[in-house]
Amino acid sequence: MNKPAQTPEPPYYAVIFTSLRTDVDEGYGDMAEKMVSMASQQPGFLGVESTRGEDGLGITVSYWESEEAIANWRRNAEHRIAQSGGRERWYSEFVTRVAKVERSRTFTR
Amino acid sequence: MNKPAQTPEPPYYAVIFTSLRTDVDEGYGDMAEKMVSMASQQPGFLGVESTRGEDGLGITVSYWESEEAIANWRRNAEHRIAQSGGRERWYSEFVTRVAKVERSRTFTR
Repeated sequence: MNKPAQTPEPPYYAVIFTSLRTDVDEGYGDMAEKMVSMASQQPGFLGVESTRGEDGLGITVSYWESEEAIANWRRNAEHRIAQSGGRERWYSEFVTRVAKVERSRTFTR
Repeated sequence: MNKPAQTPEPPYYAVIFTSLRTDVDEGYGDMAEKMVSMASQQPGFLGVESTRGEDGLGITVSYWESEEAIANWRRNAEHRIAQSGGRERWYSEFVTRVAKVERSRTFTR
């Protein structure tokens, strides 16, 4: 089940990827699945949260131990995405933000 | 329309709120709407992105000029939420993370 990621005490890093999809579905599910599975095998990966609403806006946040871990992951991911035709096929708009998580608070029932 | 937020050049701050809903709907829509409208009137507010998937996982990211702006917003929001019965009614689990955005990249078709 898709749940809030269980991450260690800050500091650590977050990559916030916010996107709007095109209507091109070809190859999308496959790519999205590969990205998550590749990320989770990378050194320094801490977790991922991903959701897309009915209006087409998607937010995926991945968490990482260090900026170096993000840089390594990005090199792999961009290579793979380029091979499969580029993000621009699937997204009409996206923003990627890299942020340092400074504090967190969790509530669990 | 719900779109990626247009934010200035980093640095700025992000509050990443990831949640799972309970099945209590009473008051939820009203509270969620009020939170966004209150946030957008706060000094230092830069934008917000919010989405919830069919599996119940929701991610809301709000962007702020400074930590002070976040602290001001939180005081108002928590007061209002407490008055309306507390977040714990609507959420079975949530994590709030405060992060400093260090860099960003935008693609627009």
